[in-house]
Amino acid sequence: MKIRQNSEVKEVEVALKGTRSMWKRVLIGPDNGSKNIIMRYFTLLPGGYSERHSHSHEHLVNIESGKGIVVDKNGNEIEVSEGYNIFVEADELHQFQNPFEKNFEFICVIPNINQN
Amino acid sequence: MKIRQNSEVKEVEVALKGTRSMWKRVLIGPDNGSKNIIMRYFTLLPGGYSERHSHSHEHLVNIESGKGIVVDKNGNEIEVSEGYNIFVEADELHQFQNPFEKNFEFICVIPNINQN
Repeated sequence: MKIRQNSEVKEVEVALKGTRSMWKRVLIGPDNGSKNIIMRYFTLLPGGYSERHSHSHEHLVNIESGKGIVVDKNGNEIEVSEGYNIFVEADELHQFQNPFEKNFEFICVIPNINQN
Repeated sequence: MKIRQNSEVKEVEVALKGTRSMWKRVLIGPDNGSKNIIMRYFTLLPGGYSERHSHSHEHLVNIESGKGIVVDKNGNEIEVSEGYNIFVEADELHQFQNPFEKNFEFICVIPNINQN
């Protein structure tokens, strides 16, 4: 068993093309023994966004704090806030945005795509 | 993409032997398209506990609200609260308890053990 405070986990900026003011903590992953699943914690600062993209792995998201916008494959913008969950299917185009004044924070779980 | 409020998801009591006052919501799972991973939301009412058990799947846990006790394989009781994460390895004995006065709420992610 591994127990940590989220705040103890190193936070790094996601410096991919198409992202802005997006920070990530890998709460639980291969480094602490989880081979199949990775639990990440994202913070989008005000004005931040993730890349609008798709990939072969799904996302299981739970909003932890604040509110933000999710853009679906058709370009629809849906407002979500603490207490919402989102399932993004494999290969589905998506983006997370924070046009608001407070941090937008969410857990995002994925399969460990590098496990094999 | 599926977006729901957690409070919209049906909550059921976990009526297994060895559990008490434990409630579960399956936030994201096979019913809404997630084949590989299941995200559940548990609420332990004051005085509640999960079964002390082990199984072949791992748990990725994030504490959402309140505080509680995690019992590890050696019987050590560790207090955790909102903002902690816990990785329970496959086949590791564990139990969650709420001896406190407020609800103890956490997300618990598992692989979909019935997928094959």
